[in-house]
Amino acid sequence: MFDHIAILAPGLLGASVARAARHYGAAKRITLWARRPETRLQLKDQPWCDRIAETPAEAVREAQLVIICAPVDQIVPLVTQIAAHLATGAIVTDVGSVKGEICRQGDKALAAPASSANFVGSHPMAGSAQTGWEHGRADLFVGRAVFVTPLPTTDAKATERVVAFWAALESNVATVEPDAHDEIVAHISHLPQVIASTLCASLAKKDPRWRNFSGGGLRDTTRIASSDPKLWKSILEQNRDEVLRALRNYQEELQAMERALANRDWFEVQAILERGKAYRDPFRPIP
Amino acid sequence: MFDHIAILAPGLLGASVARAARHYGAAKRITLWARRPETRLQLKDQPWCDRIAETPAEAVREAQLVIICAPVDQIVPLVTQIAAHLATGAIVTDVGSVKGEICRQGDKALAAPASSANFVGSHPMAGSAQTGWEHGRADLFVGRAVFVTPLPTTDAKATERVVAFWAALESNVATVEPDAHDEIVAHISHLPQVIASTLCASLAKKDPRWRNFSGGGLRDTTRIASSDPKLWKSILEQNRDEVLRALRNYQEELQAMERALANRDWFEVQAILERGKAYRDPFRPIP
Repeated sequence: MFDHIAILAPGLLGASVARAARHYGAAKRITLWARRPETRLQLKDQPWCDRIAETPAEAVREAQLVIICAPVDQIVPLVTQIAAHLATGAIVTDVGSVKGEICRQGDKALAAPASSANFVGSHPMAGSAQTGWEHGRADLFVGRAVFVTPLPTTDAKATERVVAFWAALESNVATVEPDAHDEIVAHISHLPQVIASTLCASLAKKDPRWRNFSGGGLRDTTRIASSDPKLWKSILEQNRDEVLRALRNYQEELQAMERALANRDWFEVQAILERGKAYRDPFRPIP
Repeated sequence: MFDHIAILAPGLLGASVARAARHYGAAKRITLWARRPETRLQLKDQPWCDRIAETPAEAVREAQLVIICAPVDQIVPLVTQIAAHLATGAIVTDVGSVKGEICRQGDKALAAPASSANFVGSHPMAGSAQTGWEHGRADLFVGRAVFVTPLPTTDAKATERVVAFWAALESNVATVEPDAHDEIVAHISHLPQVIASTLCASLAKKDPRWRNFSGGGLRDTTRIASSDPKLWKSILEQNRDEVLRALRNYQEELQAMERALANRDWFEVQAILERGKAYRDPFRPIP
């Protein structure tokens, strides 16, 4: 579908995009650029890598689609860096977990009068406990939600091509405005991260050996607390306002539970548990 | 090891005890009693059931070990019901998630001058998303923590036999006083349940379709919110004071995170995330 794509800063997600694009025939030619020379050396030998570039500018020169897979605080700097080197009509997207600021600034970075390139943000809701390009999988996006987040002013054709790209990797694409995206993920992704991390931080203050008694419940509830703190600090920084709003909604619910327990209002305790169950039961299994 | 055990009100746990006792040779003869006649009919045909009793009293008459697998609010009533029918020197245990009140009242119920029976509480930290005796597994306790919770006055020999029974099913037995147990599980089991349920109850107030965008993070963090609300209401009721204490500790941590976000104190945000990761990383994999 694309003759040539470039993937910048591939980790788990970037390598999975490359493998999936090859597997599903979504790109004829795949160029990669990684920040570290040793990573570039290793990537060179992968069957899903046609060319390694020494610089971001060199990587994007002939690409119709550029996918930036760097951490959220490094995405806009990379867009700025490649802006002057993009091919005519090129599309730039990313895989960052926050979209409002990135989409507005990405759009601005490509808005120079001479540029015909378009920025269209993306965010695949896929990941793994493992990080690093070595763990990339061609089926990482199959059945997973991928947000595509154009601004109201974004070129409709460019948006359509980005949607088609992710759909070709067998994901479920949802097109929403960047700020709506940030509200959604604040609730379904960033809030759970904050909750899992603070639960662990709170348990760490008691006897940490208690963890060895735990069953599957605590294990599952806290799994994502093992995520990279630096990465998540950046995500929370970029989505601070929405995360604070979601966190305050959550605290109200928690206080309602505390009140019910304190007042021995067992009817209300059970009602909260039942509302929780009613929300959780219809979750679809992940393929 | 035991010539004869009786299992009252077998669900997932009780059926797993029966299967495991048979598999590991921990009991020569296994008698079951279930409240519903239709369940008794089905159990009769299981290879791990030697006899079905029509009443709890009849079930325990010849047993050296009685394992009560009913929900927490039905355990003490069952102990009271069987007290006069126990064999000389019989041991009664249970699998309830809360131990303080159950152990004190179970002990009292067997303290009649004519009785030579002993109550020793147990709590296996094992379970499954599935409930019901049909899902019982002989390996449910392998590598799992099982609490055995004698009172300071409990007969040491009786405690030792209960410990040996669970150890024979290849679990990791930990002997702790009932109140210490309740503090531990308030933190590592009941608090995670409250957190998962309130997270879901809070998300239910936003657009519930957002759940379809979620990745593995929300799914894992909220899995136990699908548990039985009635069962958990009883557990929270029995362990109210300890759960409230754990919940207040947790709310302090959550407020620290809220403050750090509100103050844009990114150093503190990352510090909390790192404390959470340090607690979570050493979790041993479950066999």
